[in-house]
Amino acid sequence: MTYTNQHTTLTGKINYFINVREGMLINYYKNRPYLITKSLSPENQESPVHFLQPDFISSEYVYRRNHFSFPVITPKNFTLLINGRVNKPLTFHYFDLLKMPAKTIEMVMECAGNKRAKFKPRIYGEQWEDGAITHGRWKGIPLFHLLSFTEVQEEGQEIVFEGFDAGKQKDNKIVPFARSLPLQNALHPDVLVAYQYNDQPLKFKHGFPLRLVVPQWYGMASVKWLKRITVTDSPFHGPFQTIDYVYYFKNKENRNIPVTYMNVNSIIQQPLDQTIRNKGNQLIKGTAWTGRGNITEVVISFDQGKTWRPTLLNKSLAGPYSWVTWQYLWQADKKGEYNIWIRASDSAGRIQPTKPVWNKKGYGYNAISEVHVKIE
Amino acid sequence: MTYTNQHTTLTGKINYFINVREGMLINYYKNRPYLITKSLSPENQESPVHFLQPDFISSEYVYRRNHFSFPVITPKNFTLLINGRVNKPLTFHYFDLLKMPAKTIEMVMECAGNKRAKFKPRIYGEQWEDGAITHGRWKGIPLFHLLSFTEVQEEGQEIVFEGFDAGKQKDNKIVPFARSLPLQNALHPDVLVAYQYNDQPLKFKHGFPLRLVVPQWYGMASVKWLKRITVTDSPFHGPFQTIDYVYYFKNKENRNIPVTYMNVNSIIQQPLDQTIRNKGNQLIKGTAWTGRGNITEVVISFDQGKTWRPTLLNKSLAGPYSWVTWQYLWQADKKGEYNIWIRASDSAGRIQPTKPVWNKKGYGYNAISEVHVKIE
Repeated sequence: MTYTNQHTTLTGKINYFINVREGMLINYYKNRPYLITKSLSPENQESPVHFLQPDFISSEYVYRRNHFSFPVITPKNFTLLINGRVNKPLTFHYFDLLKMPAKTIEMVMECAGNKRAKFKPRIYGEQWEDGAITHGRWKGIPLFHLLSFTEVQEEGQEIVFEGFDAGKQKDNKIVPFARSLPLQNALHPDVLVAYQYNDQPLKFKHGFPLRLVVPQWYGMASVKWLKRITVTDSPFHGPFQTIDYVYYFKNKENRNIPVTYMNVNSIIQQPLDQTIRNKGNQLIKGTAWTGRGNITEVVISFDQGKTWRPTLLNKSLAGPYSWVTWQYLWQADKKGEYNIWIRASDSAGRIQPTKPVWNKKGYGYNAISEVHVKIE
Repeated sequence: MTYTNQHTTLTGKINYFINVREGMLINYYKNRPYLITKSLSPENQESPVHFLQPDFISSEYVYRRNHFSFPVITPKNFTLLINGRVNKPLTFHYFDLLKMPAKTIEMVMECAGNKRAKFKPRIYGEQWEDGAITHGRWKGIPLFHLLSFTEVQEEGQEIVFEGFDAGKQKDNKIVPFARSLPLQNALHPDVLVAYQYNDQPLKFKHGFPLRLVVPQWYGMASVKWLKRITVTDSPFHGPFQTIDYVYYFKNKENRNIPVTYMNVNSIIQQPLDQTIRNKGNQLIKGTAWTGRGNITEVVISFDQGKTWRPTLLNKSLAGPYSWVTWQYLWQADKKGEYNIWIRASDSAGRIQPTKPVWNKKGYGYNAISEVHVKIE
């Protein structure tokens, strides 16, 4: 008698055979993590980032953050229109873009709502833990290069990026996902109209055929399924520009501030929170990143921040927008319960704060990273 | 030019094609949840239970709780030995068991550590949220039937069940996963040596070829990869019997109590915690279950338990060990922030408590279920 069980995974098929008469091996399997679902319609799933090698996170583990259900992409959507305050409105075809001089950048992309679940008082909305973040290699055409063909007019102030994804607002009006960048940010030579991620065509769920990628900014700026780029002479007021992705602070005298660059931040990948370990050496490791400059220092504390010790930084992920990995070998010789704190600093003089800066919609959480470990 | 992207999922392959010249549709996809990883070695993953139909949870969504790395199962492991205090020790072969009169039961299986992450003060160990639970249909041979062939001796007191999975303890001694049941519990006609789950051979990760299933008990009793059944004349002292799966209460005057039957409990599947909804009717729904008797009532409160209203129970999942589904149509006409509490009761007179019964290893959490919802 022969049974065949097929165990299919995202990365490929794994079979195990049950064939007693012929004496075959029974189980062949691989332990793997999966995306963690926050909602299914629209699909919002975070990366199992604690269980991944931090070099280049592969597409199937990249977090998915959607405001609407997925658009239907058909061959007629393989074009990108640039219009508005330009002398020569142009439509670029996907396959024409593939032939142009391209640039590759390695970068961290983090959702503005990453770590929202950690705010206290708690925030309403998707409860992202640590995994609304990815690190990978994007290839595409610098946006300024495309804009140079269209000749931006002097009145051009902002550039609006519109995706194919759209949906109803409360008032039943249909709006697309659209975001703007000030002209000087949009012209930065590393802002790309990307068509590859980690040397593969973009996956549909990550923006195929074309996606804007904006290094150093939170992920909302990197518009997926890019449909149209419009140069405007006035500030853009779309709901994802002026209602969402805005810091509303507790202290109402503060002006509300749009969400832009990533804060300096870190993740402890190992050990996991609330872990029990036996006495002996423990490798503590993780990543750190920033949206301004680069990471200069990652320090560790075992006494709630009274004293700090340096960790070992590994900057081999070379790009200016990469995250760094860090590690610390802890000689855990004494039984007990430990609070481990990690704090990153960047070259712009920013340091992870001890307390998060609470804001109504829960963006930009970057307080000191913390895990609790029990040594037995 | 033609690209083919293959998007492979646990339930099958989904392809989407990019074929511009021939004008094919581009994206065909399915939104689906995944298991949520707590650790990879050993593999511990919980079910995405909030995103599933609660009837019969399919194998790929069943939580995985392991104490050791997976055993290697080869054809010589297709046998089950029954020995100890019996007159006729016997070895049953898997394929012989398939031919015997079988029984099918529908039941809830819940890990004793389910919801551990909710205890305060927090517990060390796997941080299970709501998903270390499943509901499905098991088929196998009643254990008492197999035991009757072996003739249990009068001195027989307990029955020890040993799996093929084993690993090192702190003292470097290798121990298998093994658990015992008192004789009278083991002889219950619904305790099965199971070989099917939801009409399919057990999946390897869920105990193939044979698994003990013990209705009403927490999942640790349902020993996977069942290797040996030993009738003993004295209490079993394995580490998973006397160290783990024991309630150590705060109040040390209490005797420590072994973990056995499931507590009365519930899950709110919808809405998710910290959800924002527009004004209007909201369907609130979930499941409830118990390890003693059956669910008699599930009530809902919007005022922290001052007043309770009945929910609508659906007992169509018919078995005596099934969970029930419940629902409540909430007319959410007023903006505001709401705490929604759900409380189940069973025919044994047990009620979900307002506060959980804290215990050192974090077993049996069953306090009232709660979600926070904001109506805008």
